[in-house]
Amino acid sequence: MTTRGRFITLEGGEGVGKTTNLDFIRRWLDAAGLEVVTSREPGGTPLAEEIRGLLLAVRDEPVAPLAELLLVFAARAQHIAEVIEPALARGAWVLCDRFTDATYAYQGGGRGFDPTVIALLERLVQDALQPDLTLYLDLAPETGRARMTGRALDRFEREQDPFFERVRAVYLQRASELARFRVIDAAGPLATVQARLADALRDFLNRSGQ
Amino acid sequence: MTTRGRFITLEGGEGVGKTTNLDFIRRWLDAAGLEVVTSREPGGTPLAEEIRGLLLAVRDEPVAPLAELLLVFAARAQHIAEVIEPALARGAWVLCDRFTDATYAYQGGGRGFDPTVIALLERLVQDALQPDLTLYLDLAPETGRARMTGRALDRFEREQDPFFERVRAVYLQRASELARFRVIDAAGPLATVQARLADALRDFLNRSGQ
Repeated sequence: MTTRGRFITLEGGEGVGKTTNLDFIRRWLDAAGLEVVTSREPGGTPLAEEIRGLLLAVRDEPVAPLAELLLVFAARAQHIAEVIEPALARGAWVLCDRFTDATYAYQGGGRGFDPTVIALLERLVQDALQPDLTLYLDLAPETGRARMTGRALDRFEREQDPFFERVRAVYLQRASELARFRVIDAAGPLATVQARLADALRDFLNRSGQ
Repeated sequence: MTTRGRFITLEGGEGVGKTTNLDFIRRWLDAAGLEVVTSREPGGTPLAEEIRGLLLAVRDEPVAPLAELLLVFAARAQHIAEVIEPALARGAWVLCDRFTDATYAYQGGGRGFDPTVIALLERLVQDALQPDLTLYLDLAPETGRARMTGRALDRFEREQDPFFERVRAVYLQRASELARFRVIDAAGPLATVQARLADALRDFLNRSGQ
């Protein structure tokens, strides 16, 4: 019988270096001899990436908060059915750039959407699926946003500082409540941040009995 | 104080003549001196029409039933917020080509999706909003499909006869349970069908005290 894989998510606000660090984590897990499937949300399948395009597009039409939330979970349902569950079931590890914690942070904290509605959709779409480990790259929003230059901003990145302060507050709140969270200080040199990530991963592998 | 408008939906399977008859109904209501906003689902706003495009596209990737259902309700949430509610609130009548009865028929009956999940999303997205009158154009699926020639079929139209038999059965079941439904026999010459529609509209206006 195949042992089910583990599900690791990477979370964080704008400009925390998620892309670079996702690649570091993937290589670290590869080096540990694990089969790793990397993905991202919203997205991860052709249809889910098309939904991502609808979500991020800057548009004149105001987007109803509930429409945004249902699009996020539609993409997630497709991603789970087509990528995450099949990979975990065959024993692969899944490393995902953002998952439902981001929905609580952005749609719940940022937009002010009622978290009980998010929780209802979470149960509907995920059933018992939850990440086994969530690495949250924490950085003051003004520091993160100062790092973001030289490209066009999407519909979320165009929000103002109070939005990102609320996003961060929800991440830190969840980190304090959920044992699967590890808060990684994303300030300081990249090598220092990655040493913190490696510590968290080593600790997780030890606790997982790998 | 403005009197709230009425919400009329037109439902029916493939090839029943929904487009032609929607135009007939719109002209009939116009002639009765009513301001009418016509729309369609999925769709009705630029974003909701983009979601419609995702839903109808023929694709190699299997679409998870729950992803399809959430996309339908995401489009509906946007359509209600941007078009239907503002129109009804200012006193206009809304005439819509398909609404949530189609979700029960296609995703519930056709795809076999649990109707209690559809009902949960219906409450979340619509709150108390329901059509005041639903005109269901009824036709045996084989008759309707024989009328459809000369254009490419979308992802739903490519389904087989048993799918459309289940769609029809759900429509007829709902018509038997919900007082707002009027079943219109869509067989026979167009003039006969439209005389039936006019009767149903006249009756609705009389009962509405218009």
